[in-house]
Amino acid sequence: MKKLNEHEKYMKLAIKEALKASEIDEVPVGAIILFEGKIIARGYNKRNKSQNATAHAEHIAIEKACKKLKSWRLENCELYVTLEPCPMCAGAIIQSRIPKVYFGAFDPKGGCFGSCVDFREIKGFNHYPNVQGGILQEECAMLLKEFFKSKRKNKGE
Amino acid sequence: MKKLNEHEKYMKLAIKEALKASEIDEVPVGAIILFEGKIIARGYNKRNKSQNATAHAEHIAIEKACKKLKSWRLENCELYVTLEPCPMCAGAIIQSRIPKVYFGAFDPKGGCFGSCVDFREIKGFNHYPNVQGGILQEECAMLLKEFFKSKRKNKGE
Repeated sequence: MKKLNEHEKYMKLAIKEALKASEIDEVPVGAIILFEGKIIARGYNKRNKSQNATAHAEHIAIEKACKKLKSWRLENCELYVTLEPCPMCAGAIIQSRIPKVYFGAFDPKGGCFGSCVDFREIKGFNHYPNVQGGILQEECAMLLKEFFKSKRKNKGE
Repeated sequence: MKKLNEHEKYMKLAIKEALKASEIDEVPVGAIILFEGKIIARGYNKRNKSQNATAHAEHIAIEKACKKLKSWRLENCELYVTLEPCPMCAGAIIQSRIPKVYFGAFDPKGGCFGSCVDFREIKGFNHYPNVQGGILQEECAMLLKEFFKSKRKNKGE
């Protein structure tokens, strides 16, 4: 078995969060936030369960991290998320000033760090994170693929 | 005195929310959400007070509206906000599928419906709201101008 590097190790923990989402029939996306190398927040998608449009994995993790650090500035933090952030979550990353973001699968239907648009190329924002995509990409994408496949099966499509 | 039209009337209510923010020393931005013509949610910026990076006026109003309607889909809703939405809030508008957005002042430092970027021109998103900016623009902008002026004065600049 291939030995995991540091980023893959943390992405595995984000995947663990994503699995919690699929267990409750939510689109499997998971996230964790580290502060100075320690995990301080976790989150998984709960949009349907909570009927809250903002309840995406990384959004939940960002709010938890703010609470934990008692600060809206998440400096010295790193975010790992299994899917490329949507405009809302990429925006929350900018607002919370997270300096480092690592994501798994690319998202052609909304991804804002390269797929639909790259927020780092838009002038005028007050923060630009360093972003690395494609960490355990296949595993992260497979989670989503399997989820939607099983949904279609249940619908008899 | 000039008679206010429908949009200006609602923007006045968003301004009332913005004033609540400046009263607690927060950047004065306010928002309201209507559902089928009735106000169902209000919000004002509380970022510093709450130390939560996501506590912007329209973001708070969106979460309240989801709670009220018990739905993450804010169809048949209209959002009025005194400042052009930032990437996070413009993203939350997309995620909650709000069809109509009206804002007051344009924001060259983050506005995502025309100033820094226009989300309606980015391909691949799953929703595109109708947006009208510049409603009571001067009044909305003046609120912010006065706020930052008094902050500088307090600092002795």
